[in-house]
Amino acid sequence: MLTAKLYHVPLSPFCRKVRLSLAEKKIEVELAEERYWQRDPDFLRRNPAAKVPVLRLDGMVMGESAAICEYLEDAYPTPPLMPKGAEARYEVRRLVGWFDDKFHTEVTANLIYEKVNKKIMGAGFPDSTKVKAGARAIKVHLDYMAWLLDSRRWLAGDVMTLADFAAAAHLSALDYISDVDWNRHDAVKDWYAKIKSRPAFRSILADQVPGFPVPSHYADLDF
Amino acid sequence: MLTAKLYHVPLSPFCRKVRLSLAEKKIEVELAEERYWQRDPDFLRRNPAAKVPVLRLDGMVMGESAAICEYLEDAYPTPPLMPKGAEARYEVRRLVGWFDDKFHTEVTANLIYEKVNKKIMGAGFPDSTKVKAGARAIKVHLDYMAWLLDSRRWLAGDVMTLADFAAAAHLSALDYISDVDWNRHDAVKDWYAKIKSRPAFRSILADQVPGFPVPSHYADLDF
Repeated sequence: MLTAKLYHVPLSPFCRKVRLSLAEKKIEVELAEERYWQRDPDFLRRNPAAKVPVLRLDGMVMGESAAICEYLEDAYPTPPLMPKGAEARYEVRRLVGWFDDKFHTEVTANLIYEKVNKKIMGAGFPDSTKVKAGARAIKVHLDYMAWLLDSRRWLAGDVMTLADFAAAAHLSALDYISDVDWNRHDAVKDWYAKIKSRPAFRSILADQVPGFPVPSHYADLDF
Repeated sequence: MLTAKLYHVPLSPFCRKVRLSLAEKKIEVELAEERYWQRDPDFLRRNPAAKVPVLRLDGMVMGESAAICEYLEDAYPTPPLMPKGAEARYEVRRLVGWFDDKFHTEVTANLIYEKVNKKIMGAGFPDSTKVKAGARAIKVHLDYMAWLLDSRRWLAGDVMTLADFAAAAHLSALDYISDVDWNRHDAVKDWYAKIKSRPAFRSILADQVPGFPVPSHYADLDF
């Protein structure tokens, strides 16, 4: 049998969300870094959309992180990362969309893509207007998370779900470049401490990006 | 009981996908046009993401078209718009993502947003570079659809699914501004003729956008 394999880049929030789901469900997977922007022909054959993550699993080659995570939930339902009721499932998917669409555009793209991806890809210097916009936007999003966590144990309700992994995927990548103010809200810091201490998080906390030294708080469970 | 209500704009592919799902599942809904870019305070209270569609149904107020369509599938499973097996469901979600992400960025945003939305919002003239890029990209996407339909009756397999509605939502909006070359592939034209003749499509074929006269082929089932 072929080993499961995930083509990824370390700080991609979409790859991190898939890595967290795989690890939580104890699906062993070999990681392969993929410099997707170089559009290697072999990689393009695996995924014509030329994006990561790409997951080889169960004889399939899958792209699109949202579709991959739903597949993992359908094919490997234990432990569940989605609740049972239609309304609760809606709330999880709404929040996954919130982080992967709105948070991604307003925060992740403005901070990580400007500061890290551009350097790695040789695409020039960070645009300071975008970096400032990202630094402003993350505050609003942390406030929104604190508001949710004021009445819930986890982001989408009282159990941990894919919504928490989606959020933690973005925030952990931003934490690698020290762009998260954990002192802004105790509720958000406590939530991140809980999720960060899960075994599923270990691989992510061991990531290293050449040219970007790991800050000491990044892998510290007592940050 | 409150009537179900959908806040939408007529040519939004995300709204059209939700309208098609609602109609196919025979869920009656009142349509309300929402000029979301004017950021009306009442609308922002319903959806802090300030986007359409927003659906009021079952005592909830829902945003994010992907999460809404999954909710409709969970809460109103008949008739199904998702197949049963995990692999088949993955393929549907992959294609929904393909159209709502890649096709949207490369085609819909470059054509509809430039030609229609900018005029309606008073945001200036179409950027001809973008319009040309969109006109080039749609050809590649139509070729990809023809390739899929060469071995399948519908886009994701042998039954009609949400993937067909996602694709038809984008293409029908583009057809309103006569930007789809239906003669490029018989397979794509036949697919669109099949989906266009469904009762669920009627409301979409009756849409009218002030300032943009309906072309004669738009609502014609024998186009």
